Amino acid sequence: MPAHDTLDLVIRNADVVTASDRFQCDIGVRDGRIAVLGHDLPRGAREVDATGLLALPGGVDGHCHLDQPMPDGLRMADDFFTGTRAAVCGGTTTVIPFAAQEKGGSLQAAVDDYHRRAEGRAVADYGFHLIVADPTPKVLREELPALIRRGYTSFKVYMTYDDLKLSDREMLSVLEVAKENGALVMVHAENADCISWLTDKLIGEGRIAPRFHGLARPAAVEREATHRAITFAELVDVPILIVHVSGQEAIEQIRWAQGRGLRILAETCPQYLYLTADDMGLSGDHGYEGAKCVCSPPPRDFENQAAVWRALAGGVFSVFSSDHAPFNYDDPAGKQPGGERPSFDHIPNGVPGIETRLPLLFDGIARGKLTLHQFVALTSYRPARLYGLYPRKGTIAVGADADIVLWDPARKVRIANAELHHAVDYTPYEGIEVTGWPVHCFSRGEMLVEGGRYLEPLAGRGRFLAAGVPVMD
Amino acid sequence: MPAHDTLDLVIRNADVVTASDRFQCDIGVRDGRIAVLGHDLPRGAREVDATGLLALPGGVDGHCHLDQPMPDGLRMADDFFTGTRAAVCGGTTTVIPFAAQEKGGSLQAAVDDYHRRAEGRAVADYGFHLIVADPTPKVLREELPALIRRGYTSFKVYMTYDDLKLSDREMLSVLEVAKENGALVMVHAENADCISWLTDKLIGEGRIAPRFHGLARPAAVEREATHRAITFAELVDVPILIVHVSGQEAIEQIRWAQGRGLRILAETCPQYLYLTADDMGLSGDHGYEGAKCVCSPPPRDFENQAAVWRALAGGVFSVFSSDHAPFNYDDPAGKQPGGERPSFDHIPNGVPGIETRLPLLFDGIARGKLTLHQFVALTSYRPARLYGLYPRKGTIAVGADADIVLWDPARKVRIANAELHHAVDYTPYEGIEVTGWPVHCFSRGEMLVEGGRYLEPLAGRGRFLAAGVPVMD
Amino acid sequence: MPAHDTLDLVIRNADVVTASDRFQCDIGVRDGRIAVLGHDLPRGAREVDATGLLALPGGVDGHCHLDQPMPDGLRMADDFFTGTRAAVCGGTTTVIPFAAQEKGGSLQAAVDDYHRRAEGRAVADYGFHLIVADPTPKVLREELPALIRRGYTSFKVYMTYDDLKLSDREMLSVLEVAKENGALVMVHAENADCISWLTDKLIGEGRIAPRFHGLARPAAVEREATHRAITFAELVDVPILIVHVSGQEAIEQIRWAQGRGLRILAETCPQYLYLTADDMGLSGDHGYEGAKCVCSPPPRDFENQAAVWRALAGGVFSVFSSDHAPFNYDDPAGKQPGGERPSFDHIPNGVPGIETRLPLLFDGIARGKLTLHQFVALTSYRPARLYGLYPRKGTIAVGADADIVLWDPARKVRIANAELHHAVDYTPYEGIEVTGWPVHCFSRGEMLVEGGRYLEPLAGRGRFLAAGVPVMD
Amino acid sequence: MPAHDTLDLVIRNADVVTASDRFQCDIGVRDGRIAVLGHDLPRGAREVDATGLLALPGGVDGHCHLDQPMPDGLRMADDFFTGTRAAVCGGTTTVIPFAAQEKGGSLQAAVDDYHRRAEGRAVADYGFHLIVADPTPKVLREELPALIRRGYTSFKVYMTYDDLKLSDREMLSVLEVAKENGALVMVHAENADCISWLTDKLIGEGRIAPRFHGLARPAAVEREATHRAITFAELVDVPILIVHVSGQEAIEQIRWAQGRGLRILAETCPQYLYLTADDMGLSGDHGYEGAKCVCSPPPRDFENQAAVWRALAGGVFSVFSSDHAPFNYDDPAGKQPGGERPSFDHIPNGVPGIETRLPLLFDGIARGKLTLHQFVALTSYRPARLYGLYPRKGTIAVGADADIVLWDPARKVRIANAELHHAVDYTPYEGIEVTGWPVHCFSRGEMLVEGGRYLEPLAGRGRFLAAGVPVMD
Repeated sequence: MPAHDTLDLVIRNADVVTASDRFQCDIGVRDGRIAVLGHDLPRGAREVDATGLLALPGGVDGHCHLDQPMPDGLRMADDFFTGTRAAVCGGTTTVIPFAAQEKGGSLQAAVDDYHRRAEGRAVADYGFHLIVADPTPKVLREELPALIRRGYTSFKVYMTYDDLKLSDREMLSVLEVAKENGALVMVHAENADCISWLTDKLIGEGRIAPRFHGLARPAAVEREATHRAITFAELVDVPILIVHVSGQEAIEQIRWAQGRGLRILAETCPQYLYLTADDMGLSGDHGYEGAKCVCSPPPRDFENQAAVWRALAGGVFSVFSSDHAPFNYDDPAGKQPGGERPSFDHIPNGVPGIETRLPLLFDGIARGKLTLHQFVALTSYRPARLYGLYPRKGTIAVGADADIVLWDPARKVRIANAELHHAVDYTPYEGIEVTGWPVHCFSRGEMLVEGGRYLEPLAGRGRFLAAGVPVMD
Repeated sequence: MPAHDTLDLVIRNADVVTASDRFQCDIGVRDGRIAVLGHDLPRGAREVDATGLLALPGGVDGHCHLDQPMPDGLRMADDFFTGTRAAVCGGTTTVIPFAAQEKGGSLQAAVDDYHRRAEGRAVADYGFHLIVADPTPKVLREELPALIRRGYTSFKVYMTYDDLKLSDREMLSVLEVAKENGALVMVHAENADCISWLTDKLIGEGRIAPRFHGLARPAAVEREATHRAITFAELVDVPILIVHVSGQEAIEQIRWAQGRGLRILAETCPQYLYLTADDMGLSGDHGYEGAKCVCSPPPRDFENQAAVWRALAGGVFSVFSSDHAPFNYDDPAGKQPGGERPSFDHIPNGVPGIETRLPLLFDGIARGKLTLHQFVALTSYRPARLYGLYPRKGTIAVGADADIVLWDPARKVRIANAELHHAVDYTPYEGIEVTGWPVHCFSRGEMLVEGGRYLEPLAGRGRFLAAGVPVMD
Repeated sequence: MPAHDTLDLVIRNADVVTASDRFQCDIGVRDGRIAVLGHDLPRGAREVDATGLLALPGGVDGHCHLDQPMPDGLRMADDFFTGTRAAVCGGTTTVIPFAAQEKGGSLQAAVDDYHRRAEGRAVADYGFHLIVADPTPKVLREELPALIRRGYTSFKVYMTYDDLKLSDREMLSVLEVAKENGALVMVHAENADCISWLTDKLIGEGRIAPRFHGLARPAAVEREATHRAITFAELVDVPILIVHVSGQEAIEQIRWAQGRGLRILAETCPQYLYLTADDMGLSGDHGYEGAKCVCSPPPRDFENQAAVWRALAGGVFSVFSSDHAPFNYDDPAGKQPGGERPSFDHIPNGVPGIETRLPLLFDGIARGKLTLHQFVALTSYRPARLYGLYPRKGTIAVGADADIVLWDPARKVRIANAELHHAVDYTPYEGIEVTGWPVHCFSRGEMLVEGGRYLEPLAGRGRFLAAGVPVMD
Repeated sequence: MPAHDTLDLVIRNADVVTASDRFQCDIGVRDGRIAVLGHDLPRGAREVDATGLLALPGGVDGHCHLDQPMPDGLRMADDFFTGTRAAVCGGTTTVIPFAAQEKGGSLQAAVDDYHRRAEGRAVADYGFHLIVADPTPKVLREELPALIRRGYTSFKVYMTYDDLKLSDREMLSVLEVAKENGALVMVHAENADCISWLTDKLIGEGRIAPRFHGLARPAAVEREATHRAITFAELVDVPILIVHVSGQEAIEQIRWAQGRGLRILAETCPQYLYLTADDMGLSGDHGYEGAKCVCSPPPRDFENQAAVWRALAGGVFSVFSSDHAPFNYDDPAGKQPGGERPSFDHIPNGVPGIETRLPLLFDGIARGKLTLHQFVALTSYRPARLYGLYPRKGTIAVGADADIVLWDPARKVRIANAELHHAVDYTPYEGIEVTGWPVHCFSRGEMLVEGGRYLEPLAGRGRFLAAGVPVMD
């Protein structure tokens, strides 16, 4: 490089790990990007010694909810500030939450509103997924294609939840728009009617505690919708991503489709590796404490956890996300809506996890569950590619953004909500000890976290990332 | 037997075949029932020599449509007289057509109306399936349970067709009634939304000829609905019967479910053994002649035919029915509605086959496709059991109705509509030569067909059969 | 029937159950065969009232070992007299043990010797399977074809046991002879080399107790050999019967083959429904008592038991046999060879069960595990067909041998070796209570067991049955 | 880098592709290794402009045969010189042929001999696999562990070929050594006995032409051995690599095993993407010309080709190798042994392909069959890792050997043996046009091929690579 161009930052003696490679070198950064990789680089304006640490590309959390407008007086505990603060403290430098259309509303309006919520608040870079809840002809023919062109190339559809679910016909229409415009559809696959039928039965029998949430959404309900979504993708001839897959039955459908050559991608989340249905039966508050772990699809059992680990190692999953859904437990705008403890079907769904996502998965490396490269692929490289952010994000390579996280692979940390940086009043992973922790975190060459300490960078430093074409390999 | 009780009929030297057994003996009949099986029986009032013929239990056609009220000026060509006449000429002595509820109408009213259509007309005995098209609370809680108690123990639901299809929630409710009342639900499994989406695409592209019917209903659409119906049965924990399975993809779902211990029963029909998608592309009438073979699910290809044969032999299917749907081709109330030749989606669905069902399957025996016992089980024994008519129907045993068909296993017949006894102006099997033909046919000991000649028994001799509890083994 | 021919026996008011049918009638027997079925039959020389009992065809035990010459000073506890005595007391009227070739010996010699052992001793009718242990060219080209023509139409081959196992090439040659001569090959499918390798490891580690027998023969070893045998059958294009299938892994291979249209038949036995690996760890005699339950393949676990029950109901299995292998426990010629308690690999393999086979399976009927008809098919009808004895054996129909067992379906019996009629000093099923018991047993019209009491018929009354062509449907 | 250290080579404006990443930069090389990646690197001693070309890591051919001692007067046409010359001209910079033990011989002796054959001849770097043909106790306990420690960490075993095949027990013993010593076993999976039985039948019927080779080794024979090898790996609990997988049946076994969490790796080769059984029926020389395409397993049909492509894209395969087996066609030491044209079973097995391997696969990229990254992974990255050569080989990263191939992705080349650099007198791919060609090739920074022209580097410049621990992710 020209001698007169001083490097802004040099990370020395990095043990760099990408989705496929591992090499030792210095990393030279200029203007927020990686300028050079080599040995004995010239001195930079700032120098960091990475000896003994692993240098990984910053995490990309492709599935999280932040400050999403909610009905019925509910409110998410995390906005773009607290959410991205927690993210970077957990090694995630890019987040992609959801701009959600309301039934009867405009998608563009949702996007505009969501930009207002992010601007001036985000600490990490961010993109937006869309949620398509009302695919009117105008949305399908005008709004969606325009938004895709402007950098919103992924959108989620729901097969359940009354205010969000699409009919089969609507699903097909949305998939067709994705195919024609080169976008990626994410699918929440659970059969709405089965859930409502089971729920009514359970409620009718007085089985209303949080733990019955799991019985209202058995694995067969997820498996069915997964099969159905696969069929839609097959008919339209377009890839889809099945999000938050919970266990063996859905995995079998996905493997079956993949084996036939269909491009069915899949995501899973920490809750399916660490929680079980029993966690929705926590005994506190006369059994209501289980509400903390109520999410959909619900956690299953230990055999299904093993199946998810196995599928992570076996290449069934492309991405590992948090599905961070930040509702306070002790809050009338959260898990106790209106100050009540309602039947299970009225508990806001979701668990927080934006900060713990990466350490919980990383812990599996030492236990032989997956490799370092698989970790990088699942948490950074593949989401960056799928969501059109690669090669800026998702790797450590010349030209990429200097989003670099230095991990101490041996550090043991016991997860405690008191130590976390989100605004939620609990974590479902309280007390779990993990091996490996992201100690330093850089975003575009700026150190945001040092030795595990959040450095309080400027709120709003995070930039919106217009997404390019999804790369689905 | 007491010497003073003369037998009404003795069939001598019968080579009797049941679902499991084969034995040579005389068959003694008294009061319409089989009274005795043995050698050298005393002389009966009537004697028939069966030497060289096979004596099989009369066929039970568990899926056929006769004189079913139709919308839009359509009219079925066969009523209970011509339909059952054709049935007995084809070796079928019991038929079970459908009393169909209209949306907004009463199920009981449909049953009453249907009895009026059958009485005084039927030549063969008959039961009724119900079609549940509008499962209102009243229907679910009152009409259905009452009808089940009175002998209507099977009902069909549709996952497609606008005027018939049920939502997933409605399907679950109907299955629950079946479970609580010991009835059997038959499922037409095709995904309605997928079909309408594909249809609109095809029509929009000007692809309107009958042959595009097949492209609007690909195997994946049937497979998906099959998987979904299986899931409903699993959740409700009740057996179901998937009707008219067309090929390998749906078969795989059914085998998978059966292997897991679910009680998923299945039916197939002659059209899936003898027709292919190409038959919907018959060139006559500028390609409209293919309308003769338009049915749903549509015929597939030769590989799928082979898969259906294999599944018949392999025990996947319990019953083999005609799905006789008698629409004239050259008729404004039939395949050319209002005198027009419309786009494929406006062609009345279905093919006639009540008379040819048994010979078409029987032909497979000589070709090594299935055994004589499997033939009896699929066409008589199992439908009788499933539809609560056993042991009156479905076998040749002491105490059973003397519904006996004497087959000439070597007789070769070339199928020709001119020789058939239905009132439809075509058969899709024109020109096919089969080996084996039902030469004599007895119903409750009365000979209705002799040497292939219809003896013109009294219209109305056929009796309604109140069905007992379905036996699903 | 002619008035002058008195019936030898009339069983009144029988509730007859065959593989497919159930009907109420009197059964008239003459000359050892069923002459007539009907109501109000004329008086017979002997009259038996079957009111309240089920009349089933006598059981056919298609896999049992009686008085088989053994190496190394071992001796089977049951010969043809005690073995068939126990059989008829358990409702089995036909047995098919094995005439076993020795390596280096003649097959014909084995047959001749075995006839000498049976004659004058058997109480029930019997056929012979052959065991082909040394398929020399002479055996393949001369002895086997000749024996097949003379009524030995089934033979067993082993993929394990040093003194019996065939090479893959020999297996293919034997299958080819079966194909060319219309015989049926039974296959003991376990991988010999895997077993010897695992055995040597276990012995080397000092793990010698009977319970380690299970670890030396894990399910994968059986699955592999099953897959291999299926491949041989596919290449030669001939059906085979996989005997004594122990659980899910082998079942999956068989279902896979059946789904592809291959004629792979399968058998299972009571030990795979009632025993588990834990039974080989019985604590008596310092853990040696488990030797009582040592058999191959070994019993697995409760999940595999459930899988076997499911496969019985689901049609995967054609036959249910005892694999009766009668070695005394407290006997130097039995489970304690030479008076020693050796390492697991020197324990004679097998469990007794010729008398308990039918009650143990019948008990599943009341528990909803299978139907009466499936019971008859698995234990009598299908083995009779497979082993060329139908229609003499395997059904209750005009012309069949009057091998009839009257069952009390409600009788509860607690199995106790003291009450059994074999000559073995234990039963692995001691203490198990079953519902349903064969109270009267007729062989060719002769009552051998009355009210559960053995009537001491003439030893040697049992006749050799030359087998016809196997019927494999 | 320190200013005084001049780079030996700078490749400018490289469009670098690794197994996961793609980035534009200059590549700086010093002392044969990649020293720096960055923009605007200082001038090197040698400069190469890569504008418009892709820079890929040099190929690693993990399965090829060169100068392997042969029985019966056969001789391989390629030695280490011509073989590696062809390799580098085809973009492959590392080869790993086989040091083959003879039955009765020493493994160490084979290695010593093979070093002598390579030294002074190889143009590219090379490692050795071992072939274990006679696993005596000495080999298992002494030679193999010692050789593994010295850098021979992968070995192949055969389930077929009389002079090479191991018994099941021997297979287990070799796998156990691999497990205990951290080596990787490659398995040629075909059932020897089935092949010999089929061969004898075919020969006996006079079906001796080369095309009958395919009938003697049908897919079922490969599937069976694959299942068996998987079982061995499961019992020993060690990964294995199934080499040269030819089609769907074996693929299904491998996918099944992978889905259960077993570490079953797989390889395929160009012949299974481009040839079919028909190619063994080439009409030249009265049908003998098909001998050119005789290899084992044999090529199948177009459906199987599609299945292999699909499995390549779907992650079933880890490596793509040539299985280069260089026998001249018109040669008494080759395909016409002793100057004769023998029956198919005496034709030396194998096809040449060391130079065409990469272009034939690369061509699939433009056709949408796989991605550039999958290409790199299958042909360079994963074999380097599996065979213990990573990170020296298999990637373009700081510290790696500068084995770099510059590809012109748009160049169309029609394959012609006249243009190839091996010493074989034919290629089975004659006339096939591919898109994409390796135009410049560097090994440790030395340019060996320029613009497709072989630069005649010093024979013997290739170095032996002692392999490290296999990395099986």
